[in-house]
Amino acid sequence: MKFSVWAPLAKESVELVCAQERFPMRVDAQGNWSVECTPKGIAQGYRYSIDGGPPLPDPRSAWQPQGVHGPSFLIDESELKAITASQLRPAALRYAVIYELHIGTFTPEGTYAAAAVKLPYLASLGITHLEIMPLASFPGKHGWGYDGVYLYAPQPAYGTPLELARFIAECHVHGLAVLLDVVYNHLGPDGNYLWHFAPYFTDRVKTTWGDAVNYDGPESDGVRQFVIDNARRWLDVYGFDGLRLDAVHAIFGFEAVHVLEELSGALQAWAAAAGRSIVLIAESDLNDPRLIHPPGRGGYGLDAHWADDFHHALHRVVTEEATGYYTDFNGIEDLAIAIRDGYVYQGQHSAHRRRRHGRTPIDVRPDQLVVSAQNHDQIGNRARGERLSMLLKPEQLKSVAALTLLSPFVPLLFQGEEWGATTPFLYFTDHQDQKLGELVAAGRRQEFASFGWQSEVPDPQTAATFAASRLNWEELTEPLHQDLLSWYRRLISLRASITHAAARTAHVACDVPSSWLCFTNGDLCIAVNFSAQVVTFSMPEGKWQQELSSASRSRGPAELAPYETRIYRQRR
Amino acid sequence: MKFSVWAPLAKESVELVCAQERFPMRVDAQGNWSVECTPKGIAQGYRYSIDGGPPLPDPRSAWQPQGVHGPSFLIDESELKAITASQLRPAALRYAVIYELHIGTFTPEGTYAAAAVKLPYLASLGITHLEIMPLASFPGKHGWGYDGVYLYAPQPAYGTPLELARFIAECHVHGLAVLLDVVYNHLGPDGNYLWHFAPYFTDRVKTTWGDAVNYDGPESDGVRQFVIDNARRWLDVYGFDGLRLDAVHAIFGFEAVHVLEELSGALQAWAAAAGRSIVLIAESDLNDPRLIHPPGRGGYGLDAHWADDFHHALHRVVTEEATGYYTDFNGIEDLAIAIRDGYVYQGQHSAHRRRRHGRTPIDVRPDQLVVSAQNHDQIGNRARGERLSMLLKPEQLKSVAALTLLSPFVPLLFQGEEWGATTPFLYFTDHQDQKLGELVAAGRRQEFASFGWQSEVPDPQTAATFAASRLNWEELTEPLHQDLLSWYRRLISLRASITHAAARTAHVACDVPSSWLCFTNGDLCIAVNFSAQVVTFSMPEGKWQQELSSASRSRGPAELAPYETRIYRQRR
Repeated sequence: MKFSVWAPLAKESVELVCAQERFPMRVDAQGNWSVECTPKGIAQGYRYSIDGGPPLPDPRSAWQPQGVHGPSFLIDESELKAITASQLRPAALRYAVIYELHIGTFTPEGTYAAAAVKLPYLASLGITHLEIMPLASFPGKHGWGYDGVYLYAPQPAYGTPLELARFIAECHVHGLAVLLDVVYNHLGPDGNYLWHFAPYFTDRVKTTWGDAVNYDGPESDGVRQFVIDNARRWLDVYGFDGLRLDAVHAIFGFEAVHVLEELSGALQAWAAAAGRSIVLIAESDLNDPRLIHPPGRGGYGLDAHWADDFHHALHRVVTEEATGYYTDFNGIEDLAIAIRDGYVYQGQHSAHRRRRHGRTPIDVRPDQLVVSAQNHDQIGNRARGERLSMLLKPEQLKSVAALTLLSPFVPLLFQGEEWGATTPFLYFTDHQDQKLGELVAAGRRQEFASFGWQSEVPDPQTAATFAASRLNWEELTEPLHQDLLSWYRRLISLRASITHAAARTAHVACDVPSSWLCFTNGDLCIAVNFSAQVVTFSMPEGKWQQELSSASRSRGPAELAPYETRIYRQRR
Repeated sequence: MKFSVWAPLAKESVELVCAQERFPMRVDAQGNWSVECTPKGIAQGYRYSIDGGPPLPDPRSAWQPQGVHGPSFLIDESELKAITASQLRPAALRYAVIYELHIGTFTPEGTYAAAAVKLPYLASLGITHLEIMPLASFPGKHGWGYDGVYLYAPQPAYGTPLELARFIAECHVHGLAVLLDVVYNHLGPDGNYLWHFAPYFTDRVKTTWGDAVNYDGPESDGVRQFVIDNARRWLDVYGFDGLRLDAVHAIFGFEAVHVLEELSGALQAWAAAAGRSIVLIAESDLNDPRLIHPPGRGGYGLDAHWADDFHHALHRVVTEEATGYYTDFNGIEDLAIAIRDGYVYQGQHSAHRRRRHGRTPIDVRPDQLVVSAQNHDQIGNRARGERLSMLLKPEQLKSVAALTLLSPFVPLLFQGEEWGATTPFLYFTDHQDQKLGELVAAGRRQEFASFGWQSEVPDPQTAATFAASRLNWEELTEPLHQDLLSWYRRLISLRASITHAAARTAHVACDVPSSWLCFTNGDLCIAVNFSAQVVTFSMPEGKWQQELSSASRSRGPAELAPYETRIYRQRR
């Protein structure tokens, strides 16, 4: 067996530690330590000792079944690859409907195997891509996953690597592509021994979550390789079809080639050589097309990025909430701008940020922007984790669904949204380090104080907080939930049927006093009445035929019932 | 009189303090405090008191005659503008020869007035652009100027604002454009009271010189405006023709629009409206064409940037020094790459930086890269401030001059280089804050220890260190200096005579074992023998006629004398 670890910070020695045995390793010029040996106790895992220090898990550990402080285990990659060998050609983003899910709360069991049972349901709903919240090993039994520390090792609570591979293969059987949420802007503090091995982190730049990852200082080539290899491994060994890159606005690199450009270039080159089709989506708070412009235009070459202005504008309109970042959005007019342009903030001053924000989205296609009415962050970062189903009337939920699913952008749904699940999605953690756990809980309370949300914040560390966040699939049998689900089904099917005439400019119109908005997407026209009154609205020119309405009683073509959503198709 | 100051950090009050009088100011929504009044003691200067605190100089002070801790003074801008009203149309960078000078050491007097006496000399030499080291008010009487704190107020030691305006007008009379070196990556610590007024700085990012300027956090719009207004003021009120932006690799902004893009856009828009032609050059350590690419290609739209790889490769070849960053350069081959491509480092690993560095200079023209064989940094950042004249033989100085002045790039000379001045250019400071002075001196010693230069480092704080750095113009009467000067004169004149055939690819050839290099630039061919032996070299194809040689005895067309530099012109 060959063991190898990059540890340029080791001064004297690195040893492979396996049960009672220790194997001294040899170093090359790049600081890679390696040894060929056959440890007897390999079935009990292995660790590395640096300069005679305590044995530490492998930064590239494939499997941490005993948690982030436990030993690392080898896995049989060829077995996984055999399982996920049969790839599918994922739908282009233009035709995509993404479904975000968290394995631990998606089902009562919280496992890959249990999630797999739901795949026929998701496929029949019309979902094209699943987006799995982070799987990199994080401390404790449950958590959102954004404090992962072993980026190569899937969290053991959800199942084994083999079970993960089988789950992905099963997704492919159902025609579902699978994206993984990966966190390359920071690593969690608990269980993080990486800084003993190499300068993975830098204190020159601070992120919200601590020291930034060292993507541009001395030895940063090795750190970039660590991340690029990690991304490729999920795609290659586990068969994921793409990645969602968490919070890229906190990925810093003051270098001629930004790490995101290098990452996308390396992954797309690998995919092309492997005959694979992959998709790379960034979560970004920047309103900056550089992320998705090609390198020849000075961009990083990613396929799409999240465009949260759509969410914020929509949320403000339907909930009338005006705290935190919602202060920056002004109702229906901003929603109309979001639908027309993708970004609301295109360089103007933001009161919340206390500076100008964003730039004009020149050369940006709608299928390069991912939008949602709800996602793990927008729900979970509320003090009580309320979904829109807990804040809005059923008719409003239907409006929200139509605006998102029939928008020109790539829609993303959050698990259970499609039936109006009433379970919250709270912020939950299971830090074994008690001090850290207390800090997280305190930070959480403080965060909401600064947002003006003074209400009681559930303690992220309790098991009840996690349990409350599990989807309750039994709700699905109730008529109200069934009704919303069939509405989502109709919308997704309508989305798939849109005919895009060449060079057609989207029509967006709204009226603030009477609270209606109307826009076209291809040959569909979507009209929404946000008010409790009957309103008269104006259709775009052309001949239109009604396809769908959320109102129980049909009205004339120029009138919308209270909270009505109506969809037309253009007649030829 | 109207007084106005941006002070969003003032909680309760800002007062104008002028002699015995205090005038309460009123604030607007953006944190701009202002008052209209006629202080009796305005001739003794003014300051601002924030929340009843001690009176502080104006961050936008136009004049600090009593130093960085003293009161601020108003100046009559219209008087300055009248002086500099007659602009010249500066030569395009393609035809430019830049001359870097430091007002304090350029002449024995160290004033604008004394520098003006040298203008006929510089004009007759063929210089097109002067580049003046920073003038923003810094602590003490002498210094390089990179620790300036009052960015709008010219350093009083060199003359009054009126004298500066007259100097620039005089430059224009002699057909010389004038660039100013401006420092926007940090501000000096001593005399810096700006942080009382507004969040000019951020501790989220550290630079080599301390906290970074806040170009992207809350209130950063105001900080950007402060810098853009400052740049415009030098161009508009004082009549400068352009700027050299110091160390832009330390200017950070994690925002959709980088401050450099905003700066260049605002300044070029102003210049176009004013009928002015300005040039913006960045000092950059990034080897990144983004700086000079147009915004439509994802760039920042600057006109040119310094390309130090040329210097480092050349310096290594002629001095054979191999410490510090010179370890990264491998002799004649790297010099040939620098001449061919502009960047030596195009993404490969750098041993000195311990990471990959740079990117391929696609869509970069030679007139977008500024090169030099010597400049204030490369001389002054040596322990003993030695110029090449103190390290090389006279024939080698001639080679260095030809390689720089006849390169395809924009050449920059450092004051006195053209006659081989033997005075060093040492690092000198005059910090009044004794502790800071000691810190600077200690830092200086430490820097050279880390570079492997263990030799004695002159104390930057002593007057002798400053005095030793003054040019000694009496040298110029000596034959050896006269000889070098006429060589520079010939080369500059040859450069002006180059005919560029369309679409001609430059020929660059070299031979490492026999130590020669030969390249073409337009219809010139430059051949250099770096060795003490006679060498046989190969000319590019075509018919060539000798224009100039540094050798005392002429040889055959295929042979170069020891250290010979020979220049040919192509015959039609």
